[in-house]
Amino acid sequence: MRLSQTFIKTLREAPKDETARNGALLVRAGYIHKEMAGVYDYLPLGLRVIENIKRIIREELNKLGCEEISMSALQNPEPWEKTGRFSDQEVDIWFKTEVSSGGELGLAPTHEEPITNMLKAYITSYKDLPLQVYQFQTKFRNELRAKSGILRGREFLMKDLYSFHTSEEDLDRFYGEVEKAYAKIFDRLGIGGDTYETFASGGIFSKYSHEYQTFLPVGEDTVYYNGDKSVVLNDEVLNDETLEDLGVKREDLVATTAAEVGNIFKLKTKYSEPLGLKFTDQNNELKTVYMGCYGIGVSRVMGVIAEKFADDKGLVWPEAVAPYKYHLVGIGEEGMEAAEKFYAEHPGEVLFDDRDIRPGEKFADAELMGLPYRVVISAKTLAEESAEITERITGKTKLVKLSDLK
Amino acid sequence: MRLSQTFIKTLREAPKDETARNGALLVRAGYIHKEMAGVYDYLPLGLRVIENIKRIIREELNKLGCEEISMSALQNPEPWEKTGRFSDQEVDIWFKTEVSSGGELGLAPTHEEPITNMLKAYITSYKDLPLQVYQFQTKFRNELRAKSGILRGREFLMKDLYSFHTSEEDLDRFYGEVEKAYAKIFDRLGIGGDTYETFASGGIFSKYSHEYQTFLPVGEDTVYYNGDKSVVLNDEVLNDETLEDLGVKREDLVATTAAEVGNIFKLKTKYSEPLGLKFTDQNNELKTVYMGCYGIGVSRVMGVIAEKFADDKGLVWPEAVAPYKYHLVGIGEEGMEAAEKFYAEHPGEVLFDDRDIRPGEKFADAELMGLPYRVVISAKTLAEESAEITERITGKTKLVKLSDLK
Repeated sequence: MRLSQTFIKTLREAPKDETARNGALLVRAGYIHKEMAGVYDYLPLGLRVIENIKRIIREELNKLGCEEISMSALQNPEPWEKTGRFSDQEVDIWFKTEVSSGGELGLAPTHEEPITNMLKAYITSYKDLPLQVYQFQTKFRNELRAKSGILRGREFLMKDLYSFHTSEEDLDRFYGEVEKAYAKIFDRLGIGGDTYETFASGGIFSKYSHEYQTFLPVGEDTVYYNGDKSVVLNDEVLNDETLEDLGVKREDLVATTAAEVGNIFKLKTKYSEPLGLKFTDQNNELKTVYMGCYGIGVSRVMGVIAEKFADDKGLVWPEAVAPYKYHLVGIGEEGMEAAEKFYAEHPGEVLFDDRDIRPGEKFADAELMGLPYRVVISAKTLAEESAEITERITGKTKLVKLSDLK
Repeated sequence: MRLSQTFIKTLREAPKDETARNGALLVRAGYIHKEMAGVYDYLPLGLRVIENIKRIIREELNKLGCEEISMSALQNPEPWEKTGRFSDQEVDIWFKTEVSSGGELGLAPTHEEPITNMLKAYITSYKDLPLQVYQFQTKFRNELRAKSGILRGREFLMKDLYSFHTSEEDLDRFYGEVEKAYAKIFDRLGIGGDTYETFASGGIFSKYSHEYQTFLPVGEDTVYYNGDKSVVLNDEVLNDETLEDLGVKREDLVATTAAEVGNIFKLKTKYSEPLGLKFTDQNNELKTVYMGCYGIGVSRVMGVIAEKFADDKGLVWPEAVAPYKYHLVGIGEEGMEAAEKFYAEHPGEVLFDDRDIRPGEKFADAELMGLPYRVVISAKTLAEESAEITERITGKTKLVKLSDLK
């Protein structure tokens, strides 16, 4: 991408009401635009980050045999009324709206009810199980407060996976597979080192669920960890029973703030029972399907990565999610000519600052935008048949022969 | 994809309230699921069709230097109030909702206002123009009736492109480029031969706009065409002035039904004026930006293709949008073994019916699902070292050497 030909530019100021660092930096660097609290647009660079995150998640889920679909945002109340979750007393973050032909609709805050309902058309026998489907879908949640940039959205992108099984044992098996896949996903996203599988409340059907919490100063959750971080638990389950279950002592636990980037949950028959999702087993007996659900907040992950790695100069993207690998700057006529050549040789990997502005401004923008490698080509570097490569995260600079860059 | 390992299956019956052929066939063939009138989920095969349509549109728009973004569905009333379009009297298809912190929001039925408003942060000088941005975004329209399957959705996927210019002349230039790109897009989508650029009302700012109408028996629009179809016009502009402008006589025109798959519109300063989107020109004078907008109904295109090509046996997909190119059926032990080999050699292009059911059922499903080529491998075809290839659209069958299929 040529900066001279994109509409985005870095901005001096973020919106006045944007108090979160991730939101402010992402707006200033031209990745997102704020529509209102908790509602953002994704500009070309931001959309590329989102697509990179989706690609990594998709690749790992497809390896588990998961199938991608896309469900509607508009929700018929009927299946939600069967589980009691259309009630604003039960679920207090619904956006609701009226359809002109009559009746109330909701905007999906999650999709357990419609996916369970839909699969009644597809699951009849044990031969149809197990199955697992996922989507990348915009969720709507009517949050009273949304002041954390893209860490908490009223409208946000989520990956939600649902699995369906003949038995609790098979649900346990797949749940274990998802745990391994999630570890790999967060590693590939560059936040594996700070992201912990965390014990959380399992609701009425399971003792525990698991959250994936990334330790982060601005995180909205409080979690507790033991010395080697082999046990991490959410404050909602910090009680004697949990401590005994997990074999840790309260005095050994340290509190920290964290952002929840994912969660996995053994739903068992919580939704399949009231919605009547059943199958006939080998003995021709009608049984209720076991379910699990597994979320990752895609836009939230982008916000967490922005918060986690940013420094006082701007954003710092891990290579796997960066919108481009190289931020290319040519200095002087000779440098620009060589830069043009480099750009032509690395299609799709290079953000080329070909604007007619001072090198200092280009360098400041490169730091704000945070691509992994800044590549500067000038008469000076060309004298060594080289380009100057600066790694954004370390700030380390070295000359690399142009012939080695191909 | 192996049919034994996907959750989808063909269904005997479509929902009782699904009267549109595209909706009924797409549900029965496992491409979509109906949530309610005008609201559908996209299952794995349906999502692949949508992604293929998006890819073709994206490729052609990127060639014109258009940039992809993704804007929010939730809409702050403010910019819409400036153009008068938040009023239900003015725009009667809004879904509106309340935000819990106070105030009303809308669900975007289109995005002229927010894109115009957003670009005030990015356009200041003539040097920033022209620019053109597009998105694939879910639109919400509170239609009183929605009985045409995915031809008319309350929630549907649209590509909307907006262009911004220093002058009417430059808008005209780009409008002409989009006309050429649209012709190419509809050709590539397989409906070019039946899709006509159609004169329609231009509203108060332009004499005419253009719709792209695909002639279709179940289309909801009525259009008129002359003998060689060099002039096609919407019934809303069928008047003496238009006839004179276009040099056609009323008695030479024939009426037909059609489905609108796209439209392009010279907005000029209709939105930039009330929203204050201005730039300084070479003489440092403040001027209002000229705009155009250009839509394609992505999910509607899928419905139009389904309607257009389907026959009494089921769907018929043009190769460019088909979810897979080959529908593979192995018969007998020997045939299945060779089919497994074929499947391994064509990753990503083959839907493999590896289920343990009768060949007759497999053939019927292949016809219903409508992939371009059915490939049958059996002891009989293997005796000729061949596979039997049947083209779905013509029904023509021939033996092709397996060695030629690689």
